[in-house]
Amino acid sequence: MDKLNAAVVGATGIAGQQFVAALAGHPWFEVTALAGSERSAGKKYVDALSKGSSLQWFADGPVPEQMRSMVVVDSSQLDASKFDVIFTAVESEVAKRIEPLYARTTPVFSTASAFRYEPDVPLMISGVNLDHASLIEAQRKNRGWEGFVAPIPNCTTTGMAVSLAPLAKFGIESVVLVSMQAVSGAGRSPGVLALDITDNVIPFIDGEEDKVIVETKKILGKVDVASGKVADAEIDVATSCNRVAVREGHTESVFAVLKDQPGLDEVAKAWESFDPKLGVPSEPRPFITYHRDPYRPQPRLDRDACNGLSTSVGRLRKPGRFYQWTVVSHNTKIGAAKGAVLLAECLKKKGYL
Amino acid sequence: MDKLNAAVVGATGIAGQQFVAALAGHPWFEVTALAGSERSAGKKYVDALSKGSSLQWFADGPVPEQMRSMVVVDSSQLDASKFDVIFTAVESEVAKRIEPLYARTTPVFSTASAFRYEPDVPLMISGVNLDHASLIEAQRKNRGWEGFVAPIPNCTTTGMAVSLAPLAKFGIESVVLVSMQAVSGAGRSPGVLALDITDNVIPFIDGEEDKVIVETKKILGKVDVASGKVADAEIDVATSCNRVAVREGHTESVFAVLKDQPGLDEVAKAWESFDPKLGVPSEPRPFITYHRDPYRPQPRLDRDACNGLSTSVGRLRKPGRFYQWTVVSHNTKIGAAKGAVLLAECLKKKGYL
Amino acid sequence: MDKLNAAVVGATGIAGQQFVAALAGHPWFEVTALAGSERSAGKKYVDALSKGSSLQWFADGPVPEQMRSMVVVDSSQLDASKFDVIFTAVESEVAKRIEPLYARTTPVFSTASAFRYEPDVPLMISGVNLDHASLIEAQRKNRGWEGFVAPIPNCTTTGMAVSLAPLAKFGIESVVLVSMQAVSGAGRSPGVLALDITDNVIPFIDGEEDKVIVETKKILGKVDVASGKVADAEIDVATSCNRVAVREGHTESVFAVLKDQPGLDEVAKAWESFDPKLGVPSEPRPFITYHRDPYRPQPRLDRDACNGLSTSVGRLRKPGRFYQWTVVSHNTKIGAAKGAVLLAECLKKKGYL
Amino acid sequence: MDKLNAAVVGATGIAGQQFVAALAGHPWFEVTALAGSERSAGKKYVDALSKGSSLQWFADGPVPEQMRSMVVVDSSQLDASKFDVIFTAVESEVAKRIEPLYARTTPVFSTASAFRYEPDVPLMISGVNLDHASLIEAQRKNRGWEGFVAPIPNCTTTGMAVSLAPLAKFGIESVVLVSMQAVSGAGRSPGVLALDITDNVIPFIDGEEDKVIVETKKILGKVDVASGKVADAEIDVATSCNRVAVREGHTESVFAVLKDQPGLDEVAKAWESFDPKLGVPSEPRPFITYHRDPYRPQPRLDRDACNGLSTSVGRLRKPGRFYQWTVVSHNTKIGAAKGAVLLAECLKKKGYL
Repeated sequence: MDKLNAAVVGATGIAGQQFVAALAGHPWFEVTALAGSERSAGKKYVDALSKGSSLQWFADGPVPEQMRSMVVVDSSQLDASKFDVIFTAVESEVAKRIEPLYARTTPVFSTASAFRYEPDVPLMISGVNLDHASLIEAQRKNRGWEGFVAPIPNCTTTGMAVSLAPLAKFGIESVVLVSMQAVSGAGRSPGVLALDITDNVIPFIDGEEDKVIVETKKILGKVDVASGKVADAEIDVATSCNRVAVREGHTESVFAVLKDQPGLDEVAKAWESFDPKLGVPSEPRPFITYHRDPYRPQPRLDRDACNGLSTSVGRLRKPGRFYQWTVVSHNTKIGAAKGAVLLAECLKKKGYL
Repeated sequence: MDKLNAAVVGATGIAGQQFVAALAGHPWFEVTALAGSERSAGKKYVDALSKGSSLQWFADGPVPEQMRSMVVVDSSQLDASKFDVIFTAVESEVAKRIEPLYARTTPVFSTASAFRYEPDVPLMISGVNLDHASLIEAQRKNRGWEGFVAPIPNCTTTGMAVSLAPLAKFGIESVVLVSMQAVSGAGRSPGVLALDITDNVIPFIDGEEDKVIVETKKILGKVDVASGKVADAEIDVATSCNRVAVREGHTESVFAVLKDQPGLDEVAKAWESFDPKLGVPSEPRPFITYHRDPYRPQPRLDRDACNGLSTSVGRLRKPGRFYQWTVVSHNTKIGAAKGAVLLAECLKKKGYL
Repeated sequence: MDKLNAAVVGATGIAGQQFVAALAGHPWFEVTALAGSERSAGKKYVDALSKGSSLQWFADGPVPEQMRSMVVVDSSQLDASKFDVIFTAVESEVAKRIEPLYARTTPVFSTASAFRYEPDVPLMISGVNLDHASLIEAQRKNRGWEGFVAPIPNCTTTGMAVSLAPLAKFGIESVVLVSMQAVSGAGRSPGVLALDITDNVIPFIDGEEDKVIVETKKILGKVDVASGKVADAEIDVATSCNRVAVREGHTESVFAVLKDQPGLDEVAKAWESFDPKLGVPSEPRPFITYHRDPYRPQPRLDRDACNGLSTSVGRLRKPGRFYQWTVVSHNTKIGAAKGAVLLAECLKKKGYL
Repeated sequence: MDKLNAAVVGATGIAGQQFVAALAGHPWFEVTALAGSERSAGKKYVDALSKGSSLQWFADGPVPEQMRSMVVVDSSQLDASKFDVIFTAVESEVAKRIEPLYARTTPVFSTASAFRYEPDVPLMISGVNLDHASLIEAQRKNRGWEGFVAPIPNCTTTGMAVSLAPLAKFGIESVVLVSMQAVSGAGRSPGVLALDITDNVIPFIDGEEDKVIVETKKILGKVDVASGKVADAEIDVATSCNRVAVREGHTESVFAVLKDQPGLDEVAKAWESFDPKLGVPSEPRPFITYHRDPYRPQPRLDRDACNGLSTSVGRLRKPGRFYQWTVVSHNTKIGAAKGAVLLAECLKKKGYL
């Protein structure tokens, strides 16, 4: 098969760099354009990343060879119609402005929150709720677009939602989530200062808790094809989001009430046997990595399981009415660019691009 | 008033050092003996703390002048009858053996868990459940002791319990607690290695969760004078205990269902106006430090409020059915030696020593 | 004595806040104006520090009561003639512009590097080279000022220079310095990201090494009254400056060749007996804290000695041709605002203000 | 070629685990025995590593499949004659006792310091001083061994020595080294506590500085075949060893006086073109990774270059009489087990096993 033409927008930023790294040598997508701000436009990619003699490159490995000399395009000037797919990693305000322009002609996969809460926009995690892709028809019709916008959820939502997906069959009544989030989630401008987080926990991340609550209900909800909307899952979600001194990988303590009262063995089996059979290049195998060692998962040890795409779950127990467990999910891999690429692969497989 | 004669047992250990620091210059208690293991016995305190030319002293400030030259006594040989009060900071197995010997004649305040779960032993936090001291009569009668054993709770229990005490009047039905605990809680042998906790969270602390559940119910329970026992509070308690890269100060995300559905203002007021009027030298004022800045409390900024004896509470909100907040409590101050000294002061005031 | 009228310029920044904290309740200086950028001007100090409901205050303790409601003045509009002394904590570019305006009428103590390298500007550390104050006459004459500018050195220079001062009598031929610097030295905009320094060392601090070399030679040099200049000390200085994961307190490994080949006891005695007898309120006693425990000084344990104004020195040895030792110096206390206040006290005592 | 039979002694310890990981699937060496203490002997390897349900495995990746069920042998009972090569990772005291027993029949590669300073024992780093292998003949003759003992140097020595090797041709007169060492170098019993190193630097590592000085001179010295000894290099070496909050990877600030006064370009070229052409499986290519970005090398970014076997060098400059640079070297890879395996490969190639 011919590779699809892909553009990365916001390519010089930290999240955009992760798209660039994730797409280098990708078997299905060929990056043929890198777009950025007006300031970066016209420069070679590697020059746009440079500050004096220092290279501001933060993704794993070196800058991919084939993209070093690519000339960065102004994202406002990008001719979307030339691409089969566009990956965007921009601030929400910018996303609101440019993603609709691109979506006129082209599928857009976005890490921004701008369109996550629109009724006709599916909020998908590969392997969890790909059936929500059926909303795309409504989206196209409502907005007169040939393409579409498919945002991925907040990275904190992703970890818990993946751990909940195999348990949906037991009837999830309520969940309590306390996150211990990595500093990379705050990006680099301004990011989290060492002055603030060394020897410390910061118990508040502005806006994060609301996102987790709304997104979890939407993701675990059901698409109503007639109305072209998602009926939110009727799950009581409570959350407390904290920043801890970890570079990468969100850790989440989860408490859930499950209606069917499955045995712990059944729950463990639900995770261990969970296999969405995506059949796409980035598919993590296993999709969920289940641990029996009570000291696992730990972010440093488990965040990179299957290149950061497998979700690690452990510490399953039920001392009272709650099923309890711990999740580690790589916030800047499955929770960001790599998660969006995996989603694009899945939608490609389903024929949406 | 004449000062009471006090002994510190386990004085060379990290928790014992905190007793030594907390009692230096104390207006009511005079440390007249330091006891330790056979290995330390017979040495000057400052020599028992030395390893070559390096002083293994870990409490705040220098070794108190008056205790530097005190000769350490073998804790097995300590003549308890010479003391008005004994403070012990030893392993649980040792506590089981020596605390009953001391308690024959003398009140013992202990950081060990050995006796916490005995029906006739009160588990008290100053300002929270001092009325449980009435159990001491039953304890003396049951065991034929003139003294008594008064353990303090686990440091993780303490933070949450203090935050719950002022809310008991609203009817606490259930609580969920996720702790992010400081490494000092694990002590120094072996303690938490930098190798393990740097850039990491460890989602398990052996035995900790059970302690928090059992202790919280006992502390918030009611003493039944007739039976000489505590009727546990009928609160559903669920907890997940995590270790984070913080030196001192436990951070706790709490979720609670309150029967009376008070307004948030009422809850805030309950904390702000909480004043147990202990009337003792170490009493923290305010007993609870309430924060309106959503980024507070933080362990690095708030653990030392009122010398580590005030409990910091903030982030109050009720987005769903749970009242939610964050607690910071100094695990090795109010949660250990200083908390035990404060308790001893309160029992002195109440006439128990 | 009546207190001197003082203004703090750059009062809302992190270094300016430290001036505010250091000057609260000062026995000689009374802060009667706080100046900041145009953006802060006209706001109450506490409002200028606020970002939503969060207070951006980073110095020790709370915002001093008497300064909370003080209205911030635009630093460009400050009428310097109203003050007896001005403390500035601004970027070098700003300092170049505003400090000469203030100095027309008023002594200015500055943390900025703008004037450090001017021949007629003394670069002083209290207790080390206060005799350089005699340059002030030349400065006034050259520039037609009634006041003067007295910058303090770079914080990395300060630690080493204090440790060298008592050894000058032995003839310092050369020094090699490797610094392990705290993140607070980089301030907060942008500061050092946790992403970059967690589990890491950054081996480069732009411009720092040149400053240390030039400043050390100037500080240890001799004032030539006739020419109104400092003759740099003829010491070969080599340095490597590194950033480490420490919040506060620079650690410095120093190697020195001393001409007179003193015994180690003589060197230790030179430090232990060093007493500049400043006779001013902030004078640290001892001025140098000398450690014999080979594991000391450590930044976490020793940075706050004498409120961050005592310089800690230890690990003295001479395994080869170098005398070697380790210094810990509080970069944002003696190395910044508190060091400038101490200097102002000394110059007040000497009659310069 | 048939693989050589290899035994790993001390296989359950942290350094021994790294041998196990390094040798899994090795093309030349086949691990046919794992030896440990009496306590581990008789257990399956994976059971010997287990503590309850938690696996105490600290090397990269999972426990190699083929070694999981291998039964651990008591290292005192190991029949060395059955092996072509033995890798030991034990405490120095144990090494002194058991390595001579093994060496009677078999070449022993050791991470212990026990034999490093013996005149007839070569202290080799692959690519640096493999010619010192000629000492083995003297060693065999002196001791009546068929095998030999080949210890690797201290991990701190290794980094600097590799960076110096290509510069030997310029005439190294003196070096000053300040190390900022990772906590993994202290192992796990007791290791470095998070309590001690969080927000801190520890300026002393017992015995380390002497090792670096002695070893550097020996490694850069010349073998005198007639006497069967090494004539130490006549280099003045001074060093200060510090512990910093880094998990893995030692960072070293080096200052050197080079007799020939080469240009900086010549020095850079010496590193960039340095190619010992080892021709063995683990050979890192490049052997030295030279950086021009002044912010490099950094331990977190550069320690794993070429699987932890390439030495990273950067920040070359000569502001005064010293050539100065920074080294990052992976202390538990090239500085421990992997370095010993690389050395064994080289000696195999040279016919010593």
